[in-house]
Amino acid sequence: MLTSDLKLGIIAGGQLGKMLIQEASKWGIHSYILDECETAPAVSIATVFIKGNYKEFEPVYQFGKMVDILTFEVENVNIEALKKLKSEGFKIYPDPFVIEIVQDKGLQKLFYRKNDISTVPFKLFEGINGIKKALKSNEIKIPFVQKLRRGGYDGRGIVIINSEKELNQLLVGASLIEEKANIYKEISVIAARNANGEIKCYPVVEMIFNSNANLLDSLICPSDILKEQADDAIKIATRIIESLDMAGILAVEFFIDNNGKLFVNELAPRPHNSGHHTIESIMTSQFEQHLRAILNLPLGSTELKMSSVMINITGDKDLSEVINYRGLTRIMEIDGVKIHLYGKKTVRPHRKMGHITILANNLELALRNLQKVKHILKYKP
Amino acid sequence: MLTSDLKLGIIAGGQLGKMLIQEASKWGIHSYILDECETAPAVSIATVFIKGNYKEFEPVYQFGKMVDILTFEVENVNIEALKKLKSEGFKIYPDPFVIEIVQDKGLQKLFYRKNDISTVPFKLFEGINGIKKALKSNEIKIPFVQKLRRGGYDGRGIVIINSEKELNQLLVGASLIEEKANIYKEISVIAARNANGEIKCYPVVEMIFNSNANLLDSLICPSDILKEQADDAIKIATRIIESLDMAGILAVEFFIDNNGKLFVNELAPRPHNSGHHTIESIMTSQFEQHLRAILNLPLGSTELKMSSVMINITGDKDLSEVINYRGLTRIMEIDGVKIHLYGKKTVRPHRKMGHITILANNLELALRNLQKVKHILKYKP
Repeated sequence: MLTSDLKLGIIAGGQLGKMLIQEASKWGIHSYILDECETAPAVSIATVFIKGNYKEFEPVYQFGKMVDILTFEVENVNIEALKKLKSEGFKIYPDPFVIEIVQDKGLQKLFYRKNDISTVPFKLFEGINGIKKALKSNEIKIPFVQKLRRGGYDGRGIVIINSEKELNQLLVGASLIEEKANIYKEISVIAARNANGEIKCYPVVEMIFNSNANLLDSLICPSDILKEQADDAIKIATRIIESLDMAGILAVEFFIDNNGKLFVNELAPRPHNSGHHTIESIMTSQFEQHLRAILNLPLGSTELKMSSVMINITGDKDLSEVINYRGLTRIMEIDGVKIHLYGKKTVRPHRKMGHITILANNLELALRNLQKVKHILKYKP
Repeated sequence: MLTSDLKLGIIAGGQLGKMLIQEASKWGIHSYILDECETAPAVSIATVFIKGNYKEFEPVYQFGKMVDILTFEVENVNIEALKKLKSEGFKIYPDPFVIEIVQDKGLQKLFYRKNDISTVPFKLFEGINGIKKALKSNEIKIPFVQKLRRGGYDGRGIVIINSEKELNQLLVGASLIEEKANIYKEISVIAARNANGEIKCYPVVEMIFNSNANLLDSLICPSDILKEQADDAIKIATRIIESLDMAGILAVEFFIDNNGKLFVNELAPRPHNSGHHTIESIMTSQFEQHLRAILNLPLGSTELKMSSVMINITGDKDLSEVINYRGLTRIMEIDGVKIHLYGKKTVRPHRKMGHITILANNLELALRNLQKVKHILKYKP
């Protein structure tokens, strides 16, 4: 039930935490943030900021005891502290068990296998020696993808090995090896589930890649895939969130191969980059839905209000570029441009500094406006 | 131009300030709140809270010097401090001159007269004796409406005199007397203007009254008035904001009499109760539009995303009732119900504790869902 003066603890103060507070404050919820950094994006609007390292036991344990309900905007949280809090009766959503699976790409893969969920075939390895042995015995074959089981995100902790020469790029640590898939498209579905077992999924989002640089270009909603594929993706996301018995929202990233087959790629049991458009384009934003889910409230409608395209504003490779404010001001003239700046103090290559959602009555117009937006932002006076 | 780390000063920490921060934080703006009360709604998400009485010179003057740009969510601000800040080159939007006019219903009326804006005929009085003399000499006639020039809001500072017997209810202080109009409908238009002179108006909102209790029941958008009346209202709102040469948003309340004629009733140069639905139902919310206007950014589209009905959640007359949280939880099951709770600590009769916006693809469905919402909220277990 919704109540007044609820204390919501959010672990980490990044942009996801910030956007969660923007929604939580609409219900009079008091948001507590745990983060090491006092200039993290969410801190500027947190009711209470607690400085601490969420990878360590003590800060997480003490933080959990301060709040009525604990949730996350990152996965790499000290799991022992979460388990102890849970054993003492504190409310943690999603459950530490889900966080534990998601922290480890190997456990994720084993979970898919156990639950008969379509994913690219894989093998687990302790280190580089094992991988080399498996290559010799033809258990795995070049080309392949190596993913570290822990710690990787936003393209880190992943390497693609296309030839024997590239074997020196193998990453050190426990990892999994996957066949290199022929990726036709990448899509994402955000599912929500509350403790009552109610489940709702958002419309499928399609990631559009820049084919030259293989960089994420934009995310579009609704996606341009076959209806049967979209239905299938939603069915799989529903099965996963049900199998995890979780309360909260879960982003499920898929790819579709050249034969049109769906493969689950990765899970994130929290608000997700592929759901930012929901703030303006869907009846219930992913952040409100996460709150409804963890508070065991009825889930909100995921009906589309408008079509949308979303792009991230990221730090440039050479670090010399900061946010193009003059360009941002100019793109505000285009109807339906919604700008989000996270307020991060330092720019790093590929670091997400903000995002832009472009709304329109149809996707064609949104995509045309995207071209205008990109043209203006590229030009820096 | 939009920049990073802008310090926005907001005078007063009520729900309007809170909703303004929710939007400002999306652009990485740091919000400073000046209010006497540390539990005011906006304080829970303000970046910086400064405790002080905004009716006094010194707190306003010192606060204005801390921020990059100063704006308001109330009108009864110390005007001398604003003028001094302006004379020293600080940025204040809307201009103190506009605040000064709006603080005084008499000056508002004189402004309408000077600018040939349709309003109910009026006379200004210093006190009750003058009113009684004017009655004797037939300059004014019962029935009439008395409005105190200063300090009234939300129904306070206004009295309707229907008979000689009721003359003992006359209010003490400088006031204006208006003919009692035959009100057919009440509507509102929110206009926005930036320093470049760009102007945009929102679709007309219609206030629906409970005919038994003469209490505001709900606000609907789009309104159910003639297209010519809507066009007219938007034209008048445009003329007013232009005549005031103001930067910011301006709510213009009108009534339509039994002959279909429009009369301007009141102005509010700030986000307004009649614009709350814009958060979810319009391409650009009134709060984002206010920021665009005061920062001299291009104004955003005022295109309708969905039809909406808005109701306030107010304190009950007998003070015994608090917010019906169980009911709120139940109405969340209805698609398109968006709940806003302001987080006020004490309930007073008619005090605005929150609001609910009901979205739907058409107004008929929104109104049907409104009946469901009201039915559930009325029932308290």
